[in-house]
Amino acid sequence: MTTGLIAGVREKNPLVHCITNYVTVNDVANGLLAIGASPVMADAAEEAAVFGGVCDCLYINIGTLNNTKVPAMRLAGEAAAAAGRPIVLDPVGVGATPYRMETAQMLLECLPVTLLRGNASEIKALARAGAGARGVDAAAADIVTEADIAGAADFACALSERLGVVVSFSGAIDIIADASTAYAVRNGVDMMPLVTGSGCVLSALAAAFLGAHAHAPLQATVAAYAVMGLCGELAHANLRPDEGTGSFRARMLDALYHMDDSALQAGMKVAQVR
Amino acid sequence: MTTGLIAGVREKNPLVHCITNYVTVNDVANGLLAIGASPVMADAAEEAAVFGGVCDCLYINIGTLNNTKVPAMRLAGEAAAAAGRPIVLDPVGVGATPYRMETAQMLLECLPVTLLRGNASEIKALARAGAGARGVDAAAADIVTEADIAGAADFACALSERLGVVVSFSGAIDIIADASTAYAVRNGVDMMPLVTGSGCVLSALAAAFLGAHAHAPLQATVAAYAVMGLCGELAHANLRPDEGTGSFRARMLDALYHMDDSALQAGMKVAQVR
Amino acid sequence: MTTGLIAGVREKNPLVHCITNYVTVNDVANGLLAIGASPVMADAAEEAAVFGGVCDCLYINIGTLNNTKVPAMRLAGEAAAAAGRPIVLDPVGVGATPYRMETAQMLLECLPVTLLRGNASEIKALARAGAGARGVDAAAADIVTEADIAGAADFACALSERLGVVVSFSGAIDIIADASTAYAVRNGVDMMPLVTGSGCVLSALAAAFLGAHAHAPLQATVAAYAVMGLCGELAHANLRPDEGTGSFRARMLDALYHMDDSALQAGMKVAQVR
Repeated sequence: MTTGLIAGVREKNPLVHCITNYVTVNDVANGLLAIGASPVMADAAEEAAVFGGVCDCLYINIGTLNNTKVPAMRLAGEAAAAAGRPIVLDPVGVGATPYRMETAQMLLECLPVTLLRGNASEIKALARAGAGARGVDAAAADIVTEADIAGAADFACALSERLGVVVSFSGAIDIIADASTAYAVRNGVDMMPLVTGSGCVLSALAAAFLGAHAHAPLQATVAAYAVMGLCGELAHANLRPDEGTGSFRARMLDALYHMDDSALQAGMKVAQVR
Repeated sequence: MTTGLIAGVREKNPLVHCITNYVTVNDVANGLLAIGASPVMADAAEEAAVFGGVCDCLYINIGTLNNTKVPAMRLAGEAAAAAGRPIVLDPVGVGATPYRMETAQMLLECLPVTLLRGNASEIKALARAGAGARGVDAAAADIVTEADIAGAADFACALSERLGVVVSFSGAIDIIADASTAYAVRNGVDMMPLVTGSGCVLSALAAAFLGAHAHAPLQATVAAYAVMGLCGELAHANLRPDEGTGSFRARMLDALYHMDDSALQAGMKVAQVR
Repeated sequence: MTTGLIAGVREKNPLVHCITNYVTVNDVANGLLAIGASPVMADAAEEAAVFGGVCDCLYINIGTLNNTKVPAMRLAGEAAAAAGRPIVLDPVGVGATPYRMETAQMLLECLPVTLLRGNASEIKALARAGAGARGVDAAAADIVTEADIAGAADFACALSERLGVVVSFSGAIDIIADASTAYAVRNGVDMMPLVTGSGCVLSALAAAFLGAHAHAPLQATVAAYAVMGLCGELAHANLRPDEGTGSFRARMLDALYHMDDSALQAGMKVAQVR
């Protein structure tokens, strides 16, 4: 792993244009600010392309789609593509409805997406190989365990090659892969999925790292996963017995605000698995 | 009161489809996760019916209406009705504008709503019997006090019979009623209305309890009220002198995360009043 | 400075109609509740005018525009104007896209705006005299420092006279001016811009003060700035070493909840600079 990735974000202060859902948008903005990026949210077709063209990374999240956001996603993506800026796509709940699937597929076909990041059910649904998920949470059968890391890595690399994007999916073990190389990240705690937006913030962090390190998308994504998981660990370790997900949410942001490369190096649990 | 209601929610992990306002949607999602439900937010007509048909309960909140959300509410509701799933309607600020009143009445007419839950001014406005409220907070004259519990219970039961739904309204004393039976819940603290979304989260909790206990809507709703009020009490008891509504908001979620049936049985202040 | 301004807000409980962005809307609502105002959020053309006509102050924030919000802003503004209610305009990111600039200019032309409040880059962009800002944060060159207070005050007074509104902009030093008088407020801490919505909440507080003290818009705005900055100072002073922006966000709201006129008088750093 390259070192100095967090310092690079804090130094560059990358502008991350987010077209994301309204459920967790506040956490996304605060997460970006805490890691040293500059968020801008704008999802009207009238202006999406402007921010797409000047941002350092575009982050598209399909959590709450509608017929004004979808055109804005495409316009922003085309402007980002024209300017050579990386694009992160988080296909929230993509297996749950045709509208989400069609939108995600349209975006993957029309835009040079750099990173596809979701939970295992979402990524598998996109690969047309997944078990069903009713909502936006991952189905238990899709979550990567120690026993199937090699298979998950193979799947991720093959999908990366087919789509031409970095592929990653979250779970107790996170997998991040390009066509030839895969990493497993084992940071994180069970409480994280019980705070809405943990995944959305992780995707935003990946966008921040990509915005500062566009030449190294695999390493940037791995760093984002390790940082997010480590912040969950630090936040959880600080909880008093009567505290729960409300305090945990604030503490994750606290940990993100204090995160630096030495803490990351000391705490990250990253292994190359292919 | 039936026991084991919270365990039932945590075991079933009901999928609650929320079409709600963007002001408090994050609290709604985190509240549902904390009690053990699985939230999904989707308010586009293109996909609302899909989630309406597969959810365990549909939660409709009219806090921030627009011309894409209203059709989605109806489509989701029709799908939920066809699938036999319960529907919760929170008519936020219904007395304040014709648009809200017409939407709430349309939903009540077109959908087999299971539970109508709002503050006293909202429910009275819907019953065409209320004092005016300028915004979305309850008018003082409408809040139930010890002196008028019997009258409030009569009103709630009559409205329940007329509309064919469980009726409930919040206040210092909460009233929950079907056509023949009414409960008063005296849990809660004064600070709760000073955190936006206390009512929205309460409605969402009711949806979670209904999603797990569809056969007992009255008991499920009473449980949601007692849980929410009790969480407010626990959160308030933990505040340091310099803490206020910001910390209180997080602590309510903490309390919700730890809530179980034994804590509920020990702390709930529920009385059958008719 | 007039005294008793906070008590005036808490006594009147002004209804503040907010048409604002979905990123920070929750903080705006909780901030208004904490200072003693009553927030209502409604951005559909179908009902915006109703709330505009009955509110004590209208707050318009262009952070996330779309083609349903913009007409609602105008309708609400016309209704507020007809009822003689003050209007606050926060031109978030106005220099970044033509859509924002055209919308802000349309609002300034069509509505009798009482207070224009943004960061220095936004206000300068509106005055067609600014350095560029890529996103929604202020450009470094635009932030007011001790060396250029006099120039900033002259600029603000001239702009106030030209537009016929109270003009204010945030920064390490805040400037608030009408055509003849300018104040500098030096409250606040560096961490505040690292929480999204600090500026949006400040504008909302100004709306609350204007809603209770419509006859004294300059003093009301100065009070809002001092209150917000002082809450930042109190929140920051209470942070433990491992706490960051997550806890800080909650603590600012805590401080706002406890704020009163004696604390304001003791802590405000306000100077008339012209």
